[in-house]
Amino acid sequence: MAADPYVEELGEDAVVACLCTLLRQSPRTVVGPGDDAAVLRPSRPGQLGILKTDCVVEGVHFLAEAPARWIGHKALARCISDVGAMGGNPTEAVITLGVPTHTRLSRLLGIYRGLARTAQAFEISLVGGETTRLPAGGTLWVNVALQGTVNKSHVLTRRGARPGDGIYVTGRLGGSFPSGRHLRFTPRLREAQWLAENGLASALMDLSDGLAQDLPRLAKCSGVGFSLMESSLPRHRGCTVRQALTDGEDYELLFTCPQRLQAALDQKWLLRFPKLLLTKIGSILPLGKNRKTPLSGGWDHFRKA
Amino acid sequence: MAADPYVEELGEDAVVACLCTLLRQSPRTVVGPGDDAAVLRPSRPGQLGILKTDCVVEGVHFLAEAPARWIGHKALARCISDVGAMGGNPTEAVITLGVPTHTRLSRLLGIYRGLARTAQAFEISLVGGETTRLPAGGTLWVNVALQGTVNKSHVLTRRGARPGDGIYVTGRLGGSFPSGRHLRFTPRLREAQWLAENGLASALMDLSDGLAQDLPRLAKCSGVGFSLMESSLPRHRGCTVRQALTDGEDYELLFTCPQRLQAALDQKWLLRFPKLLLTKIGSILPLGKNRKTPLSGGWDHFRKA
Repeated sequence: MAADPYVEELGEDAVVACLCTLLRQSPRTVVGPGDDAAVLRPSRPGQLGILKTDCVVEGVHFLAEAPARWIGHKALARCISDVGAMGGNPTEAVITLGVPTHTRLSRLLGIYRGLARTAQAFEISLVGGETTRLPAGGTLWVNVALQGTVNKSHVLTRRGARPGDGIYVTGRLGGSFPSGRHLRFTPRLREAQWLAENGLASALMDLSDGLAQDLPRLAKCSGVGFSLMESSLPRHRGCTVRQALTDGEDYELLFTCPQRLQAALDQKWLLRFPKLLLTKIGSILPLGKNRKTPLSGGWDHFRKA
Repeated sequence: MAADPYVEELGEDAVVACLCTLLRQSPRTVVGPGDDAAVLRPSRPGQLGILKTDCVVEGVHFLAEAPARWIGHKALARCISDVGAMGGNPTEAVITLGVPTHTRLSRLLGIYRGLARTAQAFEISLVGGETTRLPAGGTLWVNVALQGTVNKSHVLTRRGARPGDGIYVTGRLGGSFPSGRHLRFTPRLREAQWLAENGLASALMDLSDGLAQDLPRLAKCSGVGFSLMESSLPRHRGCTVRQALTDGEDYELLFTCPQRLQAALDQKWLLRFPKLLLTKIGSILPLGKNRKTPLSGGWDHFRKA
């Protein structure tokens, strides 16, 4: 057998056995990879459960030449970002790999190394997975299902924004694809948890499809309008306002903060996260009082470009 | 817009909004579809968590002409079968749809109706989902991540088989694809839960890749050998022994029962599940004492046919 065989030469059990060697379990895992399903110890009293699933597809979320480790990282980090956006703490994930048969084992191992490294960094156990072959023409994909816990009093939804609240984003926006940030980003888990624990956000979500898509979604969930100061958008070097609005895959936090807490937010943020920019980009308005030009653009999974 | 538009005409938010109308939540759901992740009430004290993910791919697990509702059913029922195979009770699922852009909305709605109907039948909440477009050449797929609970004392793994145990299967094997049973099967959830609650199975798994693949996996996990009475295999009408061994996708239960419990198993099973055949097909042997001809064949996701 070749040093780096194709998966069709190895067969499923051998492929899965190779991938499983990369997984590490926490004390929460009762039954890990290799059985019909994972069995896990319950969370502490007072905690709610969180469940999220998402995927990355070659040719949509990454290019064929993307390094395998970063594909694994991105697949997991997107879900971490979402669990954080509920104020939660991710604990266990299960993986599905959709694999063209003519794929080298080393590529799958690279993806799993990326998954495992990021899981370790965020103290997540990879407790199981499935692999499936794809028919001719299909491109590789990685689906992650991530569960976690959240303190009952720390749940952060998209629904809590009220007129008068300030609208904030972390970091800078735009240019995620050409820069490679869409692959290598750090999910703002600690920041979101801190906002939840300190009661500083009335509504929060992560920015995955671009501010122009995501801010209207948050406003719709909260039943409010908004005013955006486009000139104040924190942009990555070389990005236009339009790129900051519509490029997507920023994986920064978008949240609202009640007026009475904004001074405290500014002060405490600077002390806690001195290296991460926090920018007020607008205000929440009553429903129907939006600025006249509605936002448009951003990432849409189905519309023709 | 056409009465049955393509998803590329509708855009992601409209597609997701249509699909979400089909979802029903249980009192366990704190935050359901439409936010960054689902938030769920914890399980009762003494319960462990279960997590499972799996997918079905057009051209691998179903044909393009398969009715959409049965695609949804199969995607969820496979995971239900696996959660049952741990002795567990499924509670919530999240869905990922991988969708070629030139797909009609009605097909996605049909898949979601199938998911929703099966979810309702097994009292599972569909608490969230994602959709992604696929590049040209990709075929539709449905990934399900299913969580559940299991009583600490009822966990059924593949590891508990001991020499002397009898080997049993439920129902009949073989011919799953040509008969359409691979799409329409009923997962043996109640049966597996009953075996777990009554302590009648020492090891248990569901048969997804064919007895010829799955029985050696169970034996390997338990560190034992086995003897199979091929002539005793319960076959579907018109199926050969080889088909019963290797066709796969039977979704019947394969389990072992200690010798001292076998008479009770036979009697109680007949009373509890009078319509479902239960057959003893062999015995567990010490490791290294396998029958001379090893089983071969069965479904392998990667090997060339």
